[in-house]
Amino acid sequence: MSTIAMVKAAEKRLKGNVRRTPMLTSPFLDEIAGRKVLVKAECLQHTGSFKFRGAWSAISALPKEDRKRGVIAFSSGNHAQGVALAASMHKTKAVIIMPADAPKVKIENTKALGAKVVLYDRAGGEDRDEIAAKINEKEDLCLIKPFDDPEVIAGQGTCGIEIVFQAKDLRVKDADVLVCTGGGGLASGIALALKEYADLLRVRTVEPEGFEDYAHSLRAGRPVANQKIDGSICDAIITPTPGLLTFPILNRLAGTGMVVTDDECLHAMALAYHRLKIVLEPGGAAALAAALFHGNEIDGENVIAVATGGNVDKAVFNLALEKYGDF
Amino acid sequence: MSTIAMVKAAEKRLKGNVRRTPMLTSPFLDEIAGRKVLVKAECLQHTGSFKFRGAWSAISALPKEDRKRGVIAFSSGNHAQGVALAASMHKTKAVIIMPADAPKVKIENTKALGAKVVLYDRAGGEDRDEIAAKINEKEDLCLIKPFDDPEVIAGQGTCGIEIVFQAKDLRVKDADVLVCTGGGGLASGIALALKEYADLLRVRTVEPEGFEDYAHSLRAGRPVANQKIDGSICDAIITPTPGLLTFPILNRLAGTGMVVTDDECLHAMALAYHRLKIVLEPGGAAALAAALFHGNEIDGENVIAVATGGNVDKAVFNLALEKYGDF
Repeated sequence: MSTIAMVKAAEKRLKGNVRRTPMLTSPFLDEIAGRKVLVKAECLQHTGSFKFRGAWSAISALPKEDRKRGVIAFSSGNHAQGVALAASMHKTKAVIIMPADAPKVKIENTKALGAKVVLYDRAGGEDRDEIAAKINEKEDLCLIKPFDDPEVIAGQGTCGIEIVFQAKDLRVKDADVLVCTGGGGLASGIALALKEYADLLRVRTVEPEGFEDYAHSLRAGRPVANQKIDGSICDAIITPTPGLLTFPILNRLAGTGMVVTDDECLHAMALAYHRLKIVLEPGGAAALAAALFHGNEIDGENVIAVATGGNVDKAVFNLALEKYGDF
Repeated sequence: MSTIAMVKAAEKRLKGNVRRTPMLTSPFLDEIAGRKVLVKAECLQHTGSFKFRGAWSAISALPKEDRKRGVIAFSSGNHAQGVALAASMHKTKAVIIMPADAPKVKIENTKALGAKVVLYDRAGGEDRDEIAAKINEKEDLCLIKPFDDPEVIAGQGTCGIEIVFQAKDLRVKDADVLVCTGGGGLASGIALALKEYADLLRVRTVEPEGFEDYAHSLRAGRPVANQKIDGSICDAIITPTPGLLTFPILNRLAGTGMVVTDDECLHAMALAYHRLKIVLEPGGAAALAAALFHGNEIDGENVIAVATGGNVDKAVFNLALEKYGDF
């Protein structure tokens, strides 16, 4: 069970190691959205996404002897890099199992951050659990799950604490807080923080069309899986189903789920480049896309969009500027 | 005369209005530079460059009745946007005189921020002072100079105060602080702050090849003008000569001037995109280029590069990714 006490404890462990990312604004974005827009720029976190928070939290929470043996993780990229860097900063080894079709930049960075990367063929039916089991026959590594781990959720929750106090500094009291959502680790961590510190800030999940398992599940009140497992450029957030730990938190604390198209994410990437001077990947731009282009589904006077990651291959970034870069 | 007392007073006036921009790092950049690299991301400041600091400082320092009449400024773009936004936030009008060949994005943004923009033909010999004099026959507007104004220098100095405390948080005591330099407003403001708070941090000016008036002037100990007035993609920092107020400060406090090529700036832009997830314009990437590619001219154990602006047209940004985007 994840609790606000665990989020607060994670905050203490992360202090001085995690980056306090800025909350950005632009009058031009306010005009598009028709309300005040605050953008929490987690793309500026170490390794280019919020995932470093959860990775550091989980690794720093391990008993010393366990941590010493090393860690293992599955990830299409952002969790991979977060775990790789957090492990290296803890001077322990990391083995990361990644799909061979993950963005090249994410695979290369994970290696460069010192992790051993094992690729598997996602479409061809190779079983990543089997690969992991085989590795762990010889080495007894600790599994760092991407979202369904109380310490990972607690780490992501530290982003929520920052949001609360940064919104207050900007005199924003009442707002929907939109979070790009895959497994729901970040959204549920933020939800715990908002519940504790800011009653007038409410979490909303944002997912790409066709992968809106949270939108469906929150409506149904029980976990509903996606029909598809690939086919969106939002690679960071196309998990098949809500997590066992994360869903109950969001079912209790989140508003209705929001859904955006791939094209809306590309458009939001171009606007983030132009108006905020930050680089977003498609899955990291989903919340901003919802804030800008789905205003009619938002009640709050203000909106806070968490820009979760910026690890994007050049071709996809160019596509965003080509399609939506004429301002 | 600019003094540290004025910088401290400006800091008080700017509090809550200016953005505290983050200090970014990447192990990948450290590896290229061969030392620890800290990047002060002023491209994330309001209007996409540090210029908002000086503009706010100067406008907020005006006597109330003067401020009420409105302000006027000359600028190729970043000062223009800073003055436009700061004036609009002070609910007063701004007239900005801009060269017609300034980047389109800078002209459009200045207009959209509520300023009246008057274009002049830089190459065709139109005299911007004459244009300004004509406007001021009818309207008695206050001139906000881009750098040679004590309150503008004081405002830019607030960036230096942030650098001091952010470097301390990151346990960096001894470093060269590289600053992209046109007229020297930012570099001299930062120099005043470093002198007051951090003896082991030293300012170095960084300029594009062919426009290294500061490098020449600091060597000569007296102001030396550039031979050329255009011909670099670093449009933000190709002023003809050091300022009357800024040069004496830098002559007293700065180290040797550094010089980079346009191509090195493009390369630094691509690396900032890839490793830091920020958008830089060529002139805003000059200091990072010096940190990464001119390490042999740097004494410090660490280097701090001020990334001064990110207002770049799509074509130039694409050029950087095309030339240097294969990582």
